[in-house]
Amino acid sequence: MNETVELQEQDILLLIQEKKLAILKGYISEMNPVDLAEILEDLNIQDSLLLLRLMPKELGAEVFSYFDVDKQKEIATRITDAELKYILDELYFDDMIDLLEEMPAEFVADVLKNAPYEERRLINEFLQYPEDSAGSLMTIEYVDLKVNMTVAEAIDHIRAIGMTKETVYTCYVTSQHNKLVGIVSLRTLVTEDREKTIGEIMGTEMISVHTLDDREEVAEVFKKYNFLAVPVVDKEYRLTGIITVDDIMEVIEEEATEDFQKMAAMSPTEEEYLDAGVMTLAKNRVSWLLILMISGAFTGAVVKGYSDLLSKVTVLAVFVPMLMNSGGNAGSQSATLIIRSMSLGEIEIADFLKVISKEAGVALLCGSTLAVVNFFRLVFIERIDVLIAFVVSVTLILTVMMAELIGGALPIIAKKFNLDPAIMAGPVITTIVDAGSLMIYFGFAQAVLR
Amino acid sequence: MNETVELQEQDILLLIQEKKLAILKGYISEMNPVDLAEILEDLNIQDSLLLLRLMPKELGAEVFSYFDVDKQKEIATRITDAELKYILDELYFDDMIDLLEEMPAEFVADVLKNAPYEERRLINEFLQYPEDSAGSLMTIEYVDLKVNMTVAEAIDHIRAIGMTKETVYTCYVTSQHNKLVGIVSLRTLVTEDREKTIGEIMGTEMISVHTLDDREEVAEVFKKYNFLAVPVVDKEYRLTGIITVDDIMEVIEEEATEDFQKMAAMSPTEEEYLDAGVMTLAKNRVSWLLILMISGAFTGAVVKGYSDLLSKVTVLAVFVPMLMNSGGNAGSQSATLIIRSMSLGEIEIADFLKVISKEAGVALLCGSTLAVVNFFRLVFIERIDVLIAFVVSVTLILTVMMAELIGGALPIIAKKFNLDPAIMAGPVITTIVDAGSLMIYFGFAQAVLR
Repeated sequence: MNETVELQEQDILLLIQEKKLAILKGYISEMNPVDLAEILEDLNIQDSLLLLRLMPKELGAEVFSYFDVDKQKEIATRITDAELKYILDELYFDDMIDLLEEMPAEFVADVLKNAPYEERRLINEFLQYPEDSAGSLMTIEYVDLKVNMTVAEAIDHIRAIGMTKETVYTCYVTSQHNKLVGIVSLRTLVTEDREKTIGEIMGTEMISVHTLDDREEVAEVFKKYNFLAVPVVDKEYRLTGIITVDDIMEVIEEEATEDFQKMAAMSPTEEEYLDAGVMTLAKNRVSWLLILMISGAFTGAVVKGYSDLLSKVTVLAVFVPMLMNSGGNAGSQSATLIIRSMSLGEIEIADFLKVISKEAGVALLCGSTLAVVNFFRLVFIERIDVLIAFVVSVTLILTVMMAELIGGALPIIAKKFNLDPAIMAGPVITTIVDAGSLMIYFGFAQAVLR
Repeated sequence: MNETVELQEQDILLLIQEKKLAILKGYISEMNPVDLAEILEDLNIQDSLLLLRLMPKELGAEVFSYFDVDKQKEIATRITDAELKYILDELYFDDMIDLLEEMPAEFVADVLKNAPYEERRLINEFLQYPEDSAGSLMTIEYVDLKVNMTVAEAIDHIRAIGMTKETVYTCYVTSQHNKLVGIVSLRTLVTEDREKTIGEIMGTEMISVHTLDDREEVAEVFKKYNFLAVPVVDKEYRLTGIITVDDIMEVIEEEATEDFQKMAAMSPTEEEYLDAGVMTLAKNRVSWLLILMISGAFTGAVVKGYSDLLSKVTVLAVFVPMLMNSGGNAGSQSATLIIRSMSLGEIEIADFLKVISKEAGVALLCGSTLAVVNFFRLVFIERIDVLIAFVVSVTLILTVMMAELIGGALPIIAKKFNLDPAIMAGPVITTIVDAGSLMIYFGFAQAVLR
């Protein structure tokens, strides 16, 4: 919350406290709805309802549309049916669907019961799109033009209906059977000759997405072509809705958040941290912790296998943490770079060999640097036996090499097998590299120190 | 690259090979410039130049604007001065500045020498904005209206100049001294009465950013208010440029990429993985690897301090990897969640206590689950001495608790001291937790097994 909004919140709280409702009403009517929504999310339910009822109905509906779904649910269950109906009517179709998806079934049934037939059919259809599909992101408030309209007629059409549409800046031209045949921007309409027909000026090299496309693919399309909106078609190439850029910005952030969570070995969730309960947070984390702990038993077995050696040369144990961490860190670096590049579309499965040869080079450079520094530190500062310093340093090179090659390769291999590359990040790589690293370490030590 | 574009690329390569230039010319003139740019980036420099020269000049300039900066540099140094001048004139101002920032000084001097005075002044001014500032993102191609224009005049103005502007969908109203006084959307212009004046219909509750604002703050503004463009003003509130949503999508992705890199203990870079040289990649990684390796010596010292105990009870070494990894994984989970939530603005410094108490709860749940599973596994499957299993399991709870509290706290503390929270991620947390975990482990073992 920025300072201006904070000051406004204090004003509002003061006016509520002093019950100066007439002044309050004037005050909030002039405010930006986004800022108002931010303030109302801070207030308790009574004060929120008071403010919502004080503001002009239209503004109230707009403020409501900016609430997060939890606040929307809370409000929706506390207001009268008439008030709720008004808000639902005012909401953009995609925002209404988002709300309905979160509400209990009887609430949805109630809304459906009161909706006219055509809207009921649409709501049902939209509620059925899979959560991560283009269909779940789209809205039906777009401007629909016909090929034989003139530019002047098209502009009149927009004048008549434009204010209720989510965007008017890209208009869609459809055939009699609602097939998408062209696209015209409002910029073109405004700058073109008013007598021309839409058919003459429309673009026909359209890029559209399919209702069942994954939302990540849709985001790719927006990023590549810098669109403000993209049309969504069904199997028969009929226009079923559009997706606007503001929703895509959210998708980009949510997808990154999901990757962050997966890469730190958690089940991804869209719930905000402060809203999530302790049980939910623990549940998202504990399964991966368990899996990794049990897989780690393999590393333990390696140590156990060399317990004779360890009991004779206890100093070997001193370097186990350093070797494990260096391997883990190097592997995380590689895996992170590759996973992120893959999710940005910069690296594909076909680049496997390029990645591997690059990682081999990087690993050799990083591994040798670490090994040299480590060798001199052990011999001259820690005064460790030269032979042991040698074993530790050679193991370090091999560990870093192994870690970076595995870190670079596994995410790509995962993708090849249609798994999410983000799973093959730091924690999993570390667990794999640890066992290998210690096998090299103890095996090499046993051979050299015999 | 999608399938259609791949097929087009094959067609183009074939036409080049068979030297069917007339057909090639017709073929590429019909293509989407974004797709063409994608294909040309794959081709060698000779073929790229051939194609660029075959296409209509305007299309060529547009295709050029979609190249990444490396390709732009390569082309710019190979074409004639006249060709380059044409392209520079056609580029949007922000794209030209981006290119000039990457070119050698003599190239920039050359461009400046040939530019008219006013443009020279602007270029110089824009080249001076810091890399991560709003100023470095803005363009000067916006539609500028005056208060006393009528709606009809404004639309005529847009008709006359609209096609050369980066966006016409938000127009900016400025005073005589170029101060920003209002904002009108093209949607409003099209739907309003043509006789009204801009002063009557413009919005005056504007949200603007300052030239020196950090680009992350600008992205916040876009996300909060769902803008397509935002005005940028200087200290005197004069309009100096606008930022459009397509550039902000890139910022959002780049900021996330930077966080991914920092969180895996690398120096952040904007260079794509496949473009970066082995030396660069190694340099970005090795310094953190060295720092973490040397900090890890502390953990080694803990092991060393207990070498007597270890040589007597060698089995203790078997559980070191598992304890270290579980601590590291738990710490990474907490740190990742908190860092990401902070960079999305969902958690602030003031939430410190909320985070700590939540993490304490989660840690208790996760730690005890791991400990119970581990205890039974050690006693019933691995047939380890109950006392040792007990020591390991209690250490596990304490390690997870410590890891999640440190992982939750350090990013917030970093922010408090104006450091980047993203540095306090997995690798750093792991290094800190390791030493603590092993101190608890060996200390507790010594006390119990004495």
